[in-house]
Amino acid sequence: MKLNCDLGESFGAWQMGLDAQVMPLIDQANIACGFHAGDPTILVRTLGLAKQHQVEIGAHPSYDDKQGFGRRSVKMQADELKHLLWYQIAAVDGVAQSLGLQLSYVKPHGALYNDMMASPALLETVMQAVASYHKPLKLMLLATASAAAHRQLAKDYHLEVLFEAFADRRYTAEGALTPRSQAGSVLDHQAALAQVQQLLQSGSVQSDTGHSVFIAADTLCVHGDNPEAVALVQSIRQVLDGQ
Amino acid sequence: MKLNCDLGESFGAWQMGLDAQVMPLIDQANIACGFHAGDPTILVRTLGLAKQHQVEIGAHPSYDDKQGFGRRSVKMQADELKHLLWYQIAAVDGVAQSLGLQLSYVKPHGALYNDMMASPALLETVMQAVASYHKPLKLMLLATASAAAHRQLAKDYHLEVLFEAFADRRYTAEGALTPRSQAGSVLDHQAALAQVQQLLQSGSVQSDTGHSVFIAADTLCVHGDNPEAVALVQSIRQVLDGQ
Amino acid sequence: MKLNCDLGESFGAWQMGLDAQVMPLIDQANIACGFHAGDPTILVRTLGLAKQHQVEIGAHPSYDDKQGFGRRSVKMQADELKHLLWYQIAAVDGVAQSLGLQLSYVKPHGALYNDMMASPALLETVMQAVASYHKPLKLMLLATASAAAHRQLAKDYHLEVLFEAFADRRYTAEGALTPRSQAGSVLDHQAALAQVQQLLQSGSVQSDTGHSVFIAADTLCVHGDNPEAVALVQSIRQVLDGQ
Amino acid sequence: MKLNCDLGESFGAWQMGLDAQVMPLIDQANIACGFHAGDPTILVRTLGLAKQHQVEIGAHPSYDDKQGFGRRSVKMQADELKHLLWYQIAAVDGVAQSLGLQLSYVKPHGALYNDMMASPALLETVMQAVASYHKPLKLMLLATASAAAHRQLAKDYHLEVLFEAFADRRYTAEGALTPRSQAGSVLDHQAALAQVQQLLQSGSVQSDTGHSVFIAADTLCVHGDNPEAVALVQSIRQVLDGQ
Repeated sequence: MKLNCDLGESFGAWQMGLDAQVMPLIDQANIACGFHAGDPTILVRTLGLAKQHQVEIGAHPSYDDKQGFGRRSVKMQADELKHLLWYQIAAVDGVAQSLGLQLSYVKPHGALYNDMMASPALLETVMQAVASYHKPLKLMLLATASAAAHRQLAKDYHLEVLFEAFADRRYTAEGALTPRSQAGSVLDHQAALAQVQQLLQSGSVQSDTGHSVFIAADTLCVHGDNPEAVALVQSIRQVLDGQ
Repeated sequence: MKLNCDLGESFGAWQMGLDAQVMPLIDQANIACGFHAGDPTILVRTLGLAKQHQVEIGAHPSYDDKQGFGRRSVKMQADELKHLLWYQIAAVDGVAQSLGLQLSYVKPHGALYNDMMASPALLETVMQAVASYHKPLKLMLLATASAAAHRQLAKDYHLEVLFEAFADRRYTAEGALTPRSQAGSVLDHQAALAQVQQLLQSGSVQSDTGHSVFIAADTLCVHGDNPEAVALVQSIRQVLDGQ
Repeated sequence: MKLNCDLGESFGAWQMGLDAQVMPLIDQANIACGFHAGDPTILVRTLGLAKQHQVEIGAHPSYDDKQGFGRRSVKMQADELKHLLWYQIAAVDGVAQSLGLQLSYVKPHGALYNDMMASPALLETVMQAVASYHKPLKLMLLATASAAAHRQLAKDYHLEVLFEAFADRRYTAEGALTPRSQAGSVLDHQAALAQVQQLLQSGSVQSDTGHSVFIAADTLCVHGDNPEAVALVQSIRQVLDGQ
Repeated sequence: MKLNCDLGESFGAWQMGLDAQVMPLIDQANIACGFHAGDPTILVRTLGLAKQHQVEIGAHPSYDDKQGFGRRSVKMQADELKHLLWYQIAAVDGVAQSLGLQLSYVKPHGALYNDMMASPALLETVMQAVASYHKPLKLMLLATASAAAHRQLAKDYHLEVLFEAFADRRYTAEGALTPRSQAGSVLDHQAALAQVQQLLQSGSVQSDTGHSVFIAADTLCVHGDNPEAVALVQSIRQVLDGQ
């Protein structure tokens, strides 16, 4: 089980996230491409941190929406979205190589991630975009009850997928994330750690209705937004390293 | 002698340039990277045209200034500019490869081009940026009286340079372009053709003071903005093909 | 019956629309606010044209989406949209006053216009935004079968509405526009003129199914994108002036 | 003597400045207009804070440069800059009125402020822009040795000026700010308080060479970037209130 985290989400003079603190603790850095966050200088700085700590890097593309931090859905044509993804992946890819790094995967951001998980057509567009990029890149998806179907669909595109689970989010009995608006949807430090331990031991989580739900995850999404979040990543890292 | 032209300078719903008409006539397409013009979809469309007509492609990066079309100088730190160039080059590079094309060179745009030719420090920053990109790319510069010095400087960066002359611009006796504000600075169809023929035959142009000036150019910059410009490119193409 | 047209939709170096040709022919200019098109200099130029031809001016705000020309829906919170509308209206309002003009109405653009006509909740947000702007401005809506209900709703917000019809679009029997994807949805010159004449004489149009449909319009939306569009506006102007 | 502070400089999801803490302590809020920082929603929130604490409001326009936070000079035509200033002032003006507030002054931001103080031509462009806005607004300038000349120039434009001094910046013997790159250019808490007290008592500051320099300031520029900055503003507020 690996740890992945969204990084490089500062912009110009605006800081966001404790990248320098969380980078040493994770395995996979989802790096903002300049459309919801990040800029060319932030990108170079973030990739430099990933190199220093030998962290695998992924492009973290999004809708073109800095004011909304990529959290607002933008209705786009499939072709237009494919080009938007290629552009962002390419920017990170070429800059990474210039720093001696190799891009490894793609994880869509924010509203694009949610829309992709909700719309089979959009998911195919994303898969088609990543699969047609000129080098093999994995696609990171949410581990849901549809994971097997998603893996099969990806196979049709000759695309390798990575499934992620959330350490600090409560799941439904159907294996979906409970909406943030629902009480208890975000787990506290202890509950998150317990969820991670259960995932590692039995490959399952306990849902909001008390049922045990199987979640086949390759990687855990963690956060570096603030000191509490970083402390949780440290604890999760210890759990993983202690296995 | 090759012909190069700025292309892909439409943006969203706004059209600019007769790309489809001029692409078959040129050898080198300077492709907008999305910062002064272009967007991911325009980029794909323009690269597709280049592929169809087997035209060599270059990245045409600029300051981050769509409203000003990259014609306004932005005072930037050297590092910041290097990252901005890497980002734009990388975006075009990766998208081009996904279409089966190989990026060949870089030609800065507009104010960045002018600033680079006017400031030795900025020229070194640009050279350093292109030279440190992860694959060898040539840098296109204006052929001036300093061409030999520029070539030597580029050698220090292990960088190959391409010098360009302007078919339709009057030169000074010092081998610089006369400013656009000066009467007669832009040549008409016949005068431009005559200048091209002189360049091909003797490697020189006739300056605004009537002197013959040696211009060592590898490529001629032409324009595809309107039907008259395209007609001139057609005539120049015939001159070149008739050699 | 008045004529309204979208204007000021150039951006930086990119031209769009024959504003100087169409402005003398219309009564109401819907002026781009800088979010889907336009910029501060284009805005001043367009307002100057409106002043010269004594054309009533309206703000033409949109989603924040230059690449998509405001034609892509962006899912926003109601409050966020209200602030976005205030900002755009205010920018045009203050610049207009500095040129000696008074802003008179608001007509949302593109996807925002379509979304507003399709979603009662969004329509209320738009009404609330316009009504709470610090000076009375009318809101321009599409004249549909719901016009009476829309007028009543506007009254609740102490808001005056203007209803527009389209000269060159075929209507359904329900008084909606036939989708552009449908054959015959855009009328040619003669059919558009006939539709205008019928609207003036009987307040109705002939639908795609041949039925006569009542359309209570205060203003006709015309276009100035190209010479053919301008020629149609000229013809419609003559019809109106000949009444 | 009043206190002014730059506020509303968050952007989308990115926070900057402790606006809620510093607003109660100041007299004049320089409010970001959305070009170097701020967005329509941040603008509304910041104006709401100003209203709550009955703080005078000024527009804080800048070059169009979010990535550079308006700290990079952009070479613009005079007319273009005038339109850019009108647009930003208008946006804040109209939104402020919709919240029941009246805009009172304009203070250019960052590189535009520095360029304006360094270039007489640019200063005239800014004065002309503010003076030609449709309602009387004061212009806030740096109090320098040229203050009398600046006041006279402003008079020619029928423009009222406000001069500001910096509480926490060391001055040269010529009454200019020592560059930030120079050691000791930024004063610590005690030195800043001492400088404020000297300004209040004798209208002078002690320069980096130990000379007493007369600074005729109407307002002191303070900062709310972090808790230390806010603590300094609190101390300065107490000094002012204790007079």
